[in-house]
Amino acid sequence: MKPLALAIATASIAGCAFAIEPIQVIEPAVITQPEKVALGERLFFEPRLSRSGFLSCNSCHNLAMGGVDILPTSIGHNWQQGPINAPTVLNAKYMLAQFWDGRAANLQEQAAGPIANPKEMALEHAIALEVLESIPEYQSEFKAVYGSAGINLERVTDAIAAFEETLVTPNSRFDLWLKGDKEALSTVEKQGYSLFKANGCATCHNGPAAGGTMYQKMGLMQPFVTDNPAQGRVEVTGREGDRMVFKVPTLRNIELTYPYFHDGSTYDLKQAVITMQRVQLGRQIRDEDAASITAFLKTLTGDQPRITLPILPPSTATTPQPAPFK
Amino acid sequence: MKPLALAIATASIAGCAFAIEPIQVIEPAVITQPEKVALGERLFFEPRLSRSGFLSCNSCHNLAMGGVDILPTSIGHNWQQGPINAPTVLNAKYMLAQFWDGRAANLQEQAAGPIANPKEMALEHAIALEVLESIPEYQSEFKAVYGSAGINLERVTDAIAAFEETLVTPNSRFDLWLKGDKEALSTVEKQGYSLFKANGCATCHNGPAAGGTMYQKMGLMQPFVTDNPAQGRVEVTGREGDRMVFKVPTLRNIELTYPYFHDGSTYDLKQAVITMQRVQLGRQIRDEDAASITAFLKTLTGDQPRITLPILPPSTATTPQPAPFK
Repeated sequence: MKPLALAIATASIAGCAFAIEPIQVIEPAVITQPEKVALGERLFFEPRLSRSGFLSCNSCHNLAMGGVDILPTSIGHNWQQGPINAPTVLNAKYMLAQFWDGRAANLQEQAAGPIANPKEMALEHAIALEVLESIPEYQSEFKAVYGSAGINLERVTDAIAAFEETLVTPNSRFDLWLKGDKEALSTVEKQGYSLFKANGCATCHNGPAAGGTMYQKMGLMQPFVTDNPAQGRVEVTGREGDRMVFKVPTLRNIELTYPYFHDGSTYDLKQAVITMQRVQLGRQIRDEDAASITAFLKTLTGDQPRITLPILPPSTATTPQPAPFK
Repeated sequence: MKPLALAIATASIAGCAFAIEPIQVIEPAVITQPEKVALGERLFFEPRLSRSGFLSCNSCHNLAMGGVDILPTSIGHNWQQGPINAPTVLNAKYMLAQFWDGRAANLQEQAAGPIANPKEMALEHAIALEVLESIPEYQSEFKAVYGSAGINLERVTDAIAAFEETLVTPNSRFDLWLKGDKEALSTVEKQGYSLFKANGCATCHNGPAAGGTMYQKMGLMQPFVTDNPAQGRVEVTGREGDRMVFKVPTLRNIELTYPYFHDGSTYDLKQAVITMQRVQLGRQIRDEDAASITAFLKTLTGDQPRITLPILPPSTATTPQPAPFK
């Protein structure tokens, strides 16, 4: 209990009026290794990490659009339909694990998956590394960042993860309010936040990202009806109790990261609130209450990362050529 | 003849040593309407202008990669294979017309094509306009730029064209040399440029973009063998003499805009030089000469436009939803 007591004490000493809230402030990124972040940014936008030469991390985690592709499920190599809604890369560093089922422990482990996934970027890791090795600019950048020559999957994913760690969205109106600016939220937004807590939403959606701190069953009180075949964490743990258990998604920037749920089945945020109240909490929420919670949720949109599109170095005679139609 | 005489006179007066060269300097963009350019930039990155919600202008004219997709032919809606190599958007303002066959008179006319082309972005113009109209931020931006409410195809394509006009690549080493910096090119690069002129390349590849000033038959002296079905300008004019006549492509940033030719049939720039000498000029060029021309061509890479990725405004309840798999 000591840290909590200390926090309250500190708040008292500073004369602040804030209580301990379930959602914490997101602070701006502190970049200690700018060269590594810049390399990771290039790799994030690098379509030559896909078999087609057409898809990059940014294709489905589009930083122009809240770090998602605004599609129910993503488009992969050869226009294959992905199995699940692409989670946002924004504030992903706050997640206890990556992917909806938490099958990657961290951002670095996650980054390797889509490159080689035959339904996503569909490029064998060995060829991806061959592509990067064939380009002198990448050779020297990896050497500069890691202190020795050589490009391997660990370095590639480490750099991508370092970039992704910077993709946080501070200064949302809710954060300003958390920091003491009482005018930052309107009356209805504050009512929405009170309802969000009173109705039990914050039981799962908490922490800086308002989510990502735990796994939870989708359809706790009533079944969540979906055509989506994903079974959640049971596919990782093999435990029957983990069927339909997913990582609780972040609510940060939820205004931008439609459509909602792991199946992307609704574009309507208020409808998503109503559905969650019903299937997770067994409650038929009043329309006006759903509206005020929705108003609160829209205050969670923070400053979006300002990205200067990287200029990618050209291929060389030894670069494996993309194979979009083979 | 007056302007030419004047130019020579001016050069004399200024005491410069430069001769009249077939390729002229590319000057930096002068932006007189920043709001219109910013709106056009958003639209250029806007995937909701495609039926799938996944493809934007930047998908095939990737500003991270020389304004192209580095593929022989592009990937369109439902992974359809495009009919022809995507030309770069960089310095496209210098082209006498747009598309390989010149079927669009200018950038504005061009911009409308791919949005509705069923093999490209595959979205009816009416729905594209409905998407933009449904988003309040776009409504107010169009009003601010055009002085009255309303979003129509003319305004959309005018804004995209205004952005594309800024996509020029000044300060290449060749431009520095043109401006009088004799050290900007190496001996072999200068030799390559002399050969480029002496061998007749500059007959077609001239003007600021080193191309785009005329149409020319592909396979003038010897047939250009290709599987690509494009027949060139005959499809626009109906004149048999225009069969296999294409717009001469720009050589600016040619190092970045592989693979080469309208069929994207080679990734190897020196090989492309050898092929062009053979089919256009009927000459079997020596390997070392092709190498020095290639070295010269690589001096045409200029400053790439530095783009801050736009943050796109969210869809609303009335925004037509993307249909990637229908």
